[in-house]
Amino acid sequence: MKNVVVTDPPRADAQDAATLGGFGVATVHEALGRVGYLGPEYRPAWAGARMGGTAVTVVCWPGDNLMIHVAVEQCRPGDVLVVTTNSPSTDGLFGELFATALAHRGVRGVVLASGIRDVSELREMGFPAWSRAVSAQGSVKNTAGAVNVPVVLGGQLVHPGDVVLGDDDGVMVVPRADVPRALTAGQARLDKEAAARAAFQQGELGLDRYGLRERLPEFGIEYVSWADHQRDAG
Amino acid sequence: MKNVVVTDPPRADAQDAATLGGFGVATVHEALGRVGYLGPEYRPAWAGARMGGTAVTVVCWPGDNLMIHVAVEQCRPGDVLVVTTNSPSTDGLFGELFATALAHRGVRGVVLASGIRDVSELREMGFPAWSRAVSAQGSVKNTAGAVNVPVVLGGQLVHPGDVVLGDDDGVMVVPRADVPRALTAGQARLDKEAAARAAFQQGELGLDRYGLRERLPEFGIEYVSWADHQRDAG
Amino acid sequence: MKNVVVTDPPRADAQDAATLGGFGVATVHEALGRVGYLGPEYRPAWAGARMGGTAVTVVCWPGDNLMIHVAVEQCRPGDVLVVTTNSPSTDGLFGELFATALAHRGVRGVVLASGIRDVSELREMGFPAWSRAVSAQGSVKNTAGAVNVPVVLGGQLVHPGDVVLGDDDGVMVVPRADVPRALTAGQARLDKEAAARAAFQQGELGLDRYGLRERLPEFGIEYVSWADHQRDAG
Amino acid sequence: MKNVVVTDPPRADAQDAATLGGFGVATVHEALGRVGYLGPEYRPAWAGARMGGTAVTVVCWPGDNLMIHVAVEQCRPGDVLVVTTNSPSTDGLFGELFATALAHRGVRGVVLASGIRDVSELREMGFPAWSRAVSAQGSVKNTAGAVNVPVVLGGQLVHPGDVVLGDDDGVMVVPRADVPRALTAGQARLDKEAAARAAFQQGELGLDRYGLRERLPEFGIEYVSWADHQRDAG
Amino acid sequence: MKNVVVTDPPRADAQDAATLGGFGVATVHEALGRVGYLGPEYRPAWAGARMGGTAVTVVCWPGDNLMIHVAVEQCRPGDVLVVTTNSPSTDGLFGELFATALAHRGVRGVVLASGIRDVSELREMGFPAWSRAVSAQGSVKNTAGAVNVPVVLGGQLVHPGDVVLGDDDGVMVVPRADVPRALTAGQARLDKEAAARAAFQQGELGLDRYGLRERLPEFGIEYVSWADHQRDAG
Amino acid sequence: MKNVVVTDPPRADAQDAATLGGFGVATVHEALGRVGYLGPEYRPAWAGARMGGTAVTVVCWPGDNLMIHVAVEQCRPGDVLVVTTNSPSTDGLFGELFATALAHRGVRGVVLASGIRDVSELREMGFPAWSRAVSAQGSVKNTAGAVNVPVVLGGQLVHPGDVVLGDDDGVMVVPRADVPRALTAGQARLDKEAAARAAFQQGELGLDRYGLRERLPEFGIEYVSWADHQRDAG
Repeated sequence: MKNVVVTDPPRADAQDAATLGGFGVATVHEALGRVGYLGPEYRPAWAGARMGGTAVTVVCWPGDNLMIHVAVEQCRPGDVLVVTTNSPSTDGLFGELFATALAHRGVRGVVLASGIRDVSELREMGFPAWSRAVSAQGSVKNTAGAVNVPVVLGGQLVHPGDVVLGDDDGVMVVPRADVPRALTAGQARLDKEAAARAAFQQGELGLDRYGLRERLPEFGIEYVSWADHQRDAG
Repeated sequence: MKNVVVTDPPRADAQDAATLGGFGVATVHEALGRVGYLGPEYRPAWAGARMGGTAVTVVCWPGDNLMIHVAVEQCRPGDVLVVTTNSPSTDGLFGELFATALAHRGVRGVVLASGIRDVSELREMGFPAWSRAVSAQGSVKNTAGAVNVPVVLGGQLVHPGDVVLGDDDGVMVVPRADVPRALTAGQARLDKEAAARAAFQQGELGLDRYGLRERLPEFGIEYVSWADHQRDAG
Repeated sequence: MKNVVVTDPPRADAQDAATLGGFGVATVHEALGRVGYLGPEYRPAWAGARMGGTAVTVVCWPGDNLMIHVAVEQCRPGDVLVVTTNSPSTDGLFGELFATALAHRGVRGVVLASGIRDVSELREMGFPAWSRAVSAQGSVKNTAGAVNVPVVLGGQLVHPGDVVLGDDDGVMVVPRADVPRALTAGQARLDKEAAARAAFQQGELGLDRYGLRERLPEFGIEYVSWADHQRDAG
Repeated sequence: MKNVVVTDPPRADAQDAATLGGFGVATVHEALGRVGYLGPEYRPAWAGARMGGTAVTVVCWPGDNLMIHVAVEQCRPGDVLVVTTNSPSTDGLFGELFATALAHRGVRGVVLASGIRDVSELREMGFPAWSRAVSAQGSVKNTAGAVNVPVVLGGQLVHPGDVVLGDDDGVMVVPRADVPRALTAGQARLDKEAAARAAFQQGELGLDRYGLRERLPEFGIEYVSWADHQRDAG
Repeated sequence: MKNVVVTDPPRADAQDAATLGGFGVATVHEALGRVGYLGPEYRPAWAGARMGGTAVTVVCWPGDNLMIHVAVEQCRPGDVLVVTTNSPSTDGLFGELFATALAHRGVRGVVLASGIRDVSELREMGFPAWSRAVSAQGSVKNTAGAVNVPVVLGGQLVHPGDVVLGDDDGVMVVPRADVPRALTAGQARLDKEAAARAAFQQGELGLDRYGLRERLPEFGIEYVSWADHQRDAG
Repeated sequence: MKNVVVTDPPRADAQDAATLGGFGVATVHEALGRVGYLGPEYRPAWAGARMGGTAVTVVCWPGDNLMIHVAVEQCRPGDVLVVTTNSPSTDGLFGELFATALAHRGVRGVVLASGIRDVSELREMGFPAWSRAVSAQGSVKNTAGAVNVPVVLGGQLVHPGDVVLGDDDGVMVVPRADVPRALTAGQARLDKEAAARAAFQQGELGLDRYGLRERLPEFGIEYVSWADHQRDAG
């Protein structure tokens, strides 16, 4: 790994990122064709957290948060700090003091492949944070890594400047080039969901709404009464 | 697997199911002889959720929620939707739109072996949901499964029409034939717990209340003072 | 394993334990040199729980809570019950009735390597509890274990009488002999954190505050502009 | 749980079970419509183990192998011992001495939801064994369970007398009533696999053999040259 | 996800790939600066498997191997098939019949993020295969994916045409552009290891060979006799 | 953590350690009262490995093997290197070159809480190694730890000089003071097992041999014929 800090990568528009954050992870994930989700291991530090911002990426050595200190300086308003470690670790590389520094710089949240700590304080501050672990385990500052290089978290490639969204359903990445499409398709998906919600509240069935009923024979699905089924199984 | 939808299986009484839901999972589990619990992997989408209802069972292909659409139509007031996948999956097969459709039909909650999404919305709706994962990962509608066949979740066999209970401690199944016994034994257990609670609040010890003290020699348990123990270990 | 109940081990001071509980797990863990943390698997039963007390230790057979009944009698005001099993288990060995008995005795909380149940009731009681699982699975009372012998939870050795701390970040142990140092170093760490917080709120960077900036060349960290980096990667 | 030993359940034919064991797990699983597999957690104690026999089922308390002692007496030539625990456990409930006793009775192998031990000796004896863990952790004989009641392992329901198959790919169950179908469909599947193998050795493609090529447009699959794809992604 | 099959991506040299495979995963991983390793979850189907080849990448829907059928046709001599699923799955998407078809085409091995089956047969064929699971669970052919697009396995980005290496230590990727450097640095690393091996066989210490002894004070490491240490701990 | 290297701790007798290694892990574990086992996560690098030796203990920072270099010098003939990390890590801290250096010093094997690499080479060398992971992931030499302080692996406390045993069933520790008892009780257990083996080969049942049959009523176990059981189950 080259121990490099890349300065001033181009970012997606911070307002667009906020708009996508408002759409929510599940909606944007669907709108883009079911891609970009970091998976169920990434959980919010506190229920109800929600954010959308532009990625500043960090690679740390396990048990070492030196590069987060380096990365803070690279953050601008609207950013989200996205941290991975060179190999799997649950240590609590991030806590309240970092959150204080980042909040001062207008950073909107943080996502870590490792652990976070000071969960009570983050909740009180209302600072959004997602991670794979909560851990009080502290770290050293002995080994270099990188800032603003492409990273992989939860099987997803994140480039610096990409949009990163988080809510109660987890975290996803929207590549910078896909932001316009995400805005358009996300709004369309919201509208579609609103229409479906209204229909379902009236009792319409997805079977009919999505044209599935007429395809049931094609799927090979048969209906059988309980009595007939019991007799066959007998 | 036969791709079958079994219609109108006999259900346990919906009011009985609600009563057992009020008793709570741990109480009914004990009352029935410590059977039927789906294990610690099944967690509520939001703290405080609680329900008891009659199972409508669903088998989906992993990453595919076609059969949930089929199953919605089979649900009646008092039911609980119980969904597994043909092989392990964490994908978010269930979310707010399904919950909206089910709520309209009087369904009391849902249990999934896979993942759920729209956790914020489910919490706001107050729709009870238990699963092994929270995941925004969306699904297709390409592969058939089955509705109202026996299924296994968390090592427990669930037949359509069985009672399914959920609360902060997880999920359990009460076979339809065991409901009368569960009601009687559950109420007895509640009474017993209330008496024990009152005694413990007064300082009585379980050692005495449960007749364990006189059995300590039989268990081979010896008491030794700290000083003696240190000297022996020396 | 010798099936022994050791009576009246010397305890750390209960007020000192409470003070350390107020400092919090992450702070005391750092103050003592990053030791004693039980790891990310130990989670509170309810958000916001916090405690510090002196350990009464218990070894149970998996699926058997006989020894917790024995241990209750050994508890004094200011204690924390610390329970492990002889081999891995997630069963719910502890619930509301035990909590009622312990609360009557002035016990401040409980830590289990296995599972707990009655989570709703523990939350309502405000009784602090940490465990590796939530499980309604009940237990028998057939097999002996030990009380107030050294135990290992989460890779940490806990002696009876040691201080055990818990909060939203997890659980840690402070050996009895280290309590004076923990009090002094913990207060110093709190003061240091307060100063850093104030500085970070004003925009100071950790890079400067911790003297890291001048060591960047030593770490082999280089800064490169986005444009240069793209050209090199070209 | 009722602590019952059910004697002399009807078994599938032992020779049929051996024949299915020779077909192999993956083949029979496919032949029956992709059902009955206990999942990837069940691993053989030694590479190359293979068996088919009729199930004698056992439910043990975690950390307790009393009921395996009870079950040995119920075993006949051609049987397979199938053991679960009432809650999750990795303890080594089974080892060389049990294998010696079972081999004397003509038992063909063992499947445990918990752990096994004496792996070296089992390999030397050539006694087939599958489990979710290898563990030297020993057990007590204090708590009752059941023999020859229906059990669930790996999400599959196993009745006493069902056929259980094991090989390097894991373990599956064939319900007694499905054995004739498994024999017929399994042989047909073997024949089909042999024909496919011969064709693939000659270079035929599955795309053509399974009629998938003409359905590619229906699946929405498009072919694009590397050059065009790079230009589009540009 | 776009359902696309990209044809004829440029590949690294097949002979270079074989050379790197001979160097071994740990050696090349070190030589490139400790990057590219897919982590400990990827295990060989049989001990002693070893390979190096050029990646043909596949994205499947979980439980569906349609796209592997599509990908076979895209494979050339010297290739390695690299398969992921759109969300986590352990199903056995790959077995002996695919291996037969691939062996005919000169493919050197396969890496799957999901499961494989027919382990006995793969071992007998000597066909190298790595995966995160062994599972007999079969799959359908209903949902499209992609071939020869960038994929992530084990946190590593793999482009079609990259070199993929596997041995008993797991799997790693070498980006196509880094192959020349991997050849040079890998050979240098091999030479360095040979020299170290010879020195260690003569009793030299790493402390001296790597210049660590003189840095011990800088690390803050102190030596203390057992007697002194016991007295201090007293 | 104090960064200390404790020199020349007293060791258990090396020949005694070898004798216990010959007894095997399961036998000694039982002989000592079912204590000391490191659990099922510790697996041998190659099947058939077996050892008994005296512990030299090491604490490393995750991703850093500096202290193993320091520890090699502290090893004597008959020792076993026992390595943990300050927080969970799967990185491959140990490989062939270390094994070469240790073999030169007469070290009998190694146990790591993290990962090992060069598995093929270790198998060829016949160097015994147990770990929780196999991983090619390399490490740095930047952060201090400790040598010959008490450590915890797999929930067991290991002091320097204790006996550590490993075989196909995993790893256990025998405290130095318990070695005489382990020798005596282990031999007695071996004799008892030999007698039981001979009896079981003749068809005796554990039910009779261990006096369990007459206790069946006490356990509450009832025998019921299949016909009666089916009728009761209705």
